[in-house]
Amino acid sequence: MNYQALLDEIADEVRALPVRGDVARYIPELARVPPDSFGMALRRQDGATFGSGDWNRRFSLQSMAKVLLLALACSLDNDRVWSRVGVEPSGDPFNSLVQLEFEEGMPRNPLINAGALVISDILLELCGDPKAELLKFVRTMAGSPTVDFDEAVAQSELESGSRNRALTHFMKSFGNIEHSVDVVLDFYVHACALAMSCNEVVQAFSFLSEHGVNRPNEDRILTVPQVRRLNAIMLTCGFYDESGDFAFHVGLPGKSGVGGGIVAVCPGRFTAAAWSPRLGSKGNSILATEALRRLTQRSNASVF
Amino acid sequence: MNYQALLDEIADEVRALPVRGDVARYIPELARVPPDSFGMALRRQDGATFGSGDWNRRFSLQSMAKVLLLALACSLDNDRVWSRVGVEPSGDPFNSLVQLEFEEGMPRNPLINAGALVISDILLELCGDPKAELLKFVRTMAGSPTVDFDEAVAQSELESGSRNRALTHFMKSFGNIEHSVDVVLDFYVHACALAMSCNEVVQAFSFLSEHGVNRPNEDRILTVPQVRRLNAIMLTCGFYDESGDFAFHVGLPGKSGVGGGIVAVCPGRFTAAAWSPRLGSKGNSILATEALRRLTQRSNASVF
Amino acid sequence: MNYQALLDEIADEVRALPVRGDVARYIPELARVPPDSFGMALRRQDGATFGSGDWNRRFSLQSMAKVLLLALACSLDNDRVWSRVGVEPSGDPFNSLVQLEFEEGMPRNPLINAGALVISDILLELCGDPKAELLKFVRTMAGSPTVDFDEAVAQSELESGSRNRALTHFMKSFGNIEHSVDVVLDFYVHACALAMSCNEVVQAFSFLSEHGVNRPNEDRILTVPQVRRLNAIMLTCGFYDESGDFAFHVGLPGKSGVGGGIVAVCPGRFTAAAWSPRLGSKGNSILATEALRRLTQRSNASVF
Amino acid sequence: MNYQALLDEIADEVRALPVRGDVARYIPELARVPPDSFGMALRRQDGATFGSGDWNRRFSLQSMAKVLLLALACSLDNDRVWSRVGVEPSGDPFNSLVQLEFEEGMPRNPLINAGALVISDILLELCGDPKAELLKFVRTMAGSPTVDFDEAVAQSELESGSRNRALTHFMKSFGNIEHSVDVVLDFYVHACALAMSCNEVVQAFSFLSEHGVNRPNEDRILTVPQVRRLNAIMLTCGFYDESGDFAFHVGLPGKSGVGGGIVAVCPGRFTAAAWSPRLGSKGNSILATEALRRLTQRSNASVF
Repeated sequence: MNYQALLDEIADEVRALPVRGDVARYIPELARVPPDSFGMALRRQDGATFGSGDWNRRFSLQSMAKVLLLALACSLDNDRVWSRVGVEPSGDPFNSLVQLEFEEGMPRNPLINAGALVISDILLELCGDPKAELLKFVRTMAGSPTVDFDEAVAQSELESGSRNRALTHFMKSFGNIEHSVDVVLDFYVHACALAMSCNEVVQAFSFLSEHGVNRPNEDRILTVPQVRRLNAIMLTCGFYDESGDFAFHVGLPGKSGVGGGIVAVCPGRFTAAAWSPRLGSKGNSILATEALRRLTQRSNASVF
Repeated sequence: MNYQALLDEIADEVRALPVRGDVARYIPELARVPPDSFGMALRRQDGATFGSGDWNRRFSLQSMAKVLLLALACSLDNDRVWSRVGVEPSGDPFNSLVQLEFEEGMPRNPLINAGALVISDILLELCGDPKAELLKFVRTMAGSPTVDFDEAVAQSELESGSRNRALTHFMKSFGNIEHSVDVVLDFYVHACALAMSCNEVVQAFSFLSEHGVNRPNEDRILTVPQVRRLNAIMLTCGFYDESGDFAFHVGLPGKSGVGGGIVAVCPGRFTAAAWSPRLGSKGNSILATEALRRLTQRSNASVF
Repeated sequence: MNYQALLDEIADEVRALPVRGDVARYIPELARVPPDSFGMALRRQDGATFGSGDWNRRFSLQSMAKVLLLALACSLDNDRVWSRVGVEPSGDPFNSLVQLEFEEGMPRNPLINAGALVISDILLELCGDPKAELLKFVRTMAGSPTVDFDEAVAQSELESGSRNRALTHFMKSFGNIEHSVDVVLDFYVHACALAMSCNEVVQAFSFLSEHGVNRPNEDRILTVPQVRRLNAIMLTCGFYDESGDFAFHVGLPGKSGVGGGIVAVCPGRFTAAAWSPRLGSKGNSILATEALRRLTQRSNASVF
Repeated sequence: MNYQALLDEIADEVRALPVRGDVARYIPELARVPPDSFGMALRRQDGATFGSGDWNRRFSLQSMAKVLLLALACSLDNDRVWSRVGVEPSGDPFNSLVQLEFEEGMPRNPLINAGALVISDILLELCGDPKAELLKFVRTMAGSPTVDFDEAVAQSELESGSRNRALTHFMKSFGNIEHSVDVVLDFYVHACALAMSCNEVVQAFSFLSEHGVNRPNEDRILTVPQVRRLNAIMLTCGFYDESGDFAFHVGLPGKSGVGGGIVAVCPGRFTAAAWSPRLGSKGNSILATEALRRLTQRSNASVF
């Protein structure tokens, strides 16, 4: 399969689609991105990497970073992770708080905000200097020593994050947050503020399609069962209230972020990423979803 | 891989596990089954079929039949199906009614009761004699002309089914049920009362692992995209409030029933089924889940 | 206090207000009423009765009848009533079903639909011919032998009542409905279809302001503690999701119906009723509420 | 009526009842109170005050203070209050968060925690030194210059109040909290930590039964309509998920606190208070409820 031609073809097609959706505006820093950017990249299992459009331009990972937090935590203490977060889809976001109450402060899965905040709390326990260790982990995985937190985004998020603050205090009231809420949030918003390009994303997330090994440097990040479980959770829980829709139409594990990026994993074949800042009503990038749908259809890449 | 040896090994192991759980008691007929039955079967893509234990003993499909209803409906009018049911996991069962209200009578997916009742309503529209057509469809797929409804189970379910009756009236109040509630329920409980063995199940459901073609008779049941979508929905929604757990631990699309059966699909490789009547707290068979978990681990069969 | 002058004054005022709201349309029969009708009546403790506007025109009691069902049931078997329904406000209507599930089929109070359906089920047990006995009870209380069910409304409601049917089956699934759902609904919709004028309403409900005695015929309907409890429930639960609002602005126990009527009770002083078919967003008559608010303010009639 | 004899009689009776319930333990300071304390007081409209048992011993007002916060806020800016909190009962506590979300951060009423936190936020705007002004207000109303905050209780509550902190951040995320969460909580926990005796409570709350005038010093606190509305809200919302039950059995507006106190208001006749630290499952004092139920029955004091 000529992936370069396929990416170029899809990039041309989706850029020609009518403009829909809008960039995330809930934090001012995110609203500054050029709304019609589009990039796409794919890393084949043999390491060959292809890209099209703005595939070397960095964007804010936002919720995509939850997968990196989870991978780092699982690599350090897998059992602790699964004793403090569940693995079930969360259903309607409307119910998220009531579910958290019903289940006594245990988040349904590590890819919703509540779950990623618990994972952050775990990493604060396991790491001496969690921000530094996360950065080192991500730089190594991406093979790119300049990957960094976007401090302006992190600060902007800290200032506007009353809801995440509420969630964290709420879980603390059930005893499922150990560190101070301020420290947990500071680490969490920095992780979300990681800025990477599609090219860097497909390198950094390549261990998910390659049985737990980060190919650029041959490090084993996770065991085979662990990486399968991460993929399972991405498939069932990676797209908020559109997780079923992504599984239904794209058929691959993936994770989106409100920065407009999406990563998708075809185990044993490739890791792909697409980025376009305009979001649909459920908070997922419209063009990135569409690009990945076309990619998997034409490359016959569904896990099903 | 020597599947026969593997099934025998797993059957021996799980039968030696401590006895846990109980058979479904909400309808008297289901409570009569010998609680310590265990059977397991696997149909390889080449048609070779293996089995162990009570793999030729019939049990009540119950919710497993929802996949057959869905497949039949999709084969007849795919668009109609997806205009009347969603594709998202339903979250906590506690919230099912409130979600149905919030989403104005549109079930979250076709594998929860509300969704399967809508699919039943659709089949009443599409089929002249839906019970006869369903039976013909299932018998052909299973390659077994004696597969039949268990009338005692169907009647028992009709008499005790106030909750399904409530759900159907509730959806009718939103206009998402067209036929009379009695007729919809009668068809639905008959589908759930289909009695099949593990051997018959792996034949009948083999189109799911074989790209939409029912191998025993080479009939194309569904297109490739359709079958992928069914598998996606089974993976995200097939196990009530343990769907994420099954995806996490087993890593295959599947569907359980309170009769104690589970079918699991490894696309391109095999369809497997296990049956054991004792259920865990979420309504899924404890030993069937465990047997399939061991099967996929040892045969390296995860889709992830 | 010159109640006649006060009623006339208020009637003039509210009729001059801008037209807002619309008549109930969910059953066709209710939609036929002249939308700008307005009537108002007040029965003083000494029996003197005053009225203004369309105060002798009959309208459909709808939910106002729940108070009569409850009074009849309490007069026959008070303990049974309170063992099967609660006395708490139901909060947001959005949550009614989930609360019914959470509380295992026990309605929060007898003035929501679920509660009145349980009361109907109780009356089916306690009365030989419940429709005849209810009619006799209401005719005696109203001092009006021609009060009757509006059969067209009852039939219309039976045909469109999928939601009440769903509720009843749902409660039956928890064992809190003993009779057949059809029989319960038939009785319930007939009670709701009682047609009475404001004049008849203030006679029939006068026992609530007169310590349990129906003054027109000096019958004791309820004991003093019983009638106080009914008033308490009307105050906390009588106006769906606007009960607090009515207590806040009007300050009297009362009950509304989607037929546009409202009855209000000033213990020891008077029973008042107002009727106007146009409803606000929560299903309560806009002008009847406003008229009763002015009545209680100018007559200094709050219980608080 | 000989109130002194009645209080003594009831005090004797309820102290002889079997011991049930337990003191609030969620903050250590509250758990230190002697669990079998019991006091009761009543202030008649003419100013005569009666008491029995530990009626001069101070206890922690806790949620009873919400009425004082509300009264102070209404006296300063009535319209602002009702533009930021509702007047409806909140239903099941289980739903409180989901309702807050559904209604976009507007608490259902000022007597649930969320509502009292908004009232605290309003007072921070309206008062130069809110703690000092609240203290002055309460001391004047109680006619007791030594009434004060219990700093140990306030600090204990601040340290353990993750849930209130979560609520406040959650409302801030909807824009319904203007001040910093720390400042709002500090003021709120101090108000809850007011320590008063039954004797002081019936003086301080006497404006509620006396048409808005604080009799000890003849100050008008609220207008007649305002005080009626406060009483209406206490009746519909004063006892968490037992508000309907208190209205049903006691028939008076009232407010409880987890310190074991309850105040009840009989408009135009008296203000009563009872205190006993052992709480029932819904957080209301068992003996104080029972004592007030007997008081209102024997003094024929229901508003209904």
